[in-house]
Amino acid sequence: MAEAPKNEFWRDLKPIENSQKPDALPEVYLSKVATDDDRYYVPFSDTVGSRPLWINVKDNTWSDVLRAKEAGLVNRHYHPHEVFAYTISGKWGYLERPWTATAGDFIYEAPGEGHTLVAYDSGEPMKTLFSVT
Amino acid sequence: MAEAPKNEFWRDLKPIENSQKPDALPEVYLSKVATDDDRYYVPFSDTVGSRPLWINVKDNTWSDVLRAKEAGLVNRHYHPHEVFAYTISGKWGYLERPWTATAGDFIYEAPGEGHTLVAYDSGEPMKTLFSVT
Repeated sequence: MAEAPKNEFWRDLKPIENSQKPDALPEVYLSKVATDDDRYYVPFSDTVGSRPLWINVKDNTWSDVLRAKEAGLVNRHYHPHEVFAYTISGKWGYLERPWTATAGDFIYEAPGEGHTLVAYDSGEPMKTLFSVT
Repeated sequence: MAEAPKNEFWRDLKPIENSQKPDALPEVYLSKVATDDDRYYVPFSDTVGSRPLWINVKDNTWSDVLRAKEAGLVNRHYHPHEVFAYTISGKWGYLERPWTATAGDFIYEAPGEGHTLVAYDSGEPMKTLFSVT
């Protein structure tokens, strides 16, 4: 189980036995995913890279941390899927959309949206967690 | 468009025209979602609440910020969907799983997993962004 409780009121609760249904696929747990270690990032350009966290090769869906060390661009593209984004640091947006995202901001993008991702020079790297499902 | 660029190299790029395909549904942009303002949270128990960010009533999928002000419990349950989690603050886990999550940690849960969510007394509220797709 997870870390042992101290005085938390749930300390005597028992886990579910056989908690994964037959044929359930493995889960993923990754600590401190928005690392500054370049080795984790696949370069997209001189300033932009992606750290893959999870890839579903059957459905073409994924989660990654997108990072732009300074001003950055991900050329225009189109998503047939839903996209969930949570901004961890820095500043970014889409040329096509009215908002500008900074740390703590959430975005849901509906299937059928085209966009051009831009990262600003904000004094810190832009890091955003994306789940494209 | 998003905030005007200053000297970013992409400053002369033009947005895609008609960037949303016909019948594309609206997107969501929400700033600073992991608020401490109680009014945003639907109480699940004395210590645990959920701030809904996005709900798809057709597919029974959603994104929310789950918050436990101190030690907390979400009784055991089962997900037929995929779950993506990003820990914003505090400490939590599942009784059934080996890891303990703190700020910056990512979790992917495969469909077919049952679990009992527990939040620890860590000196700060547990806040985690979940997308259940």
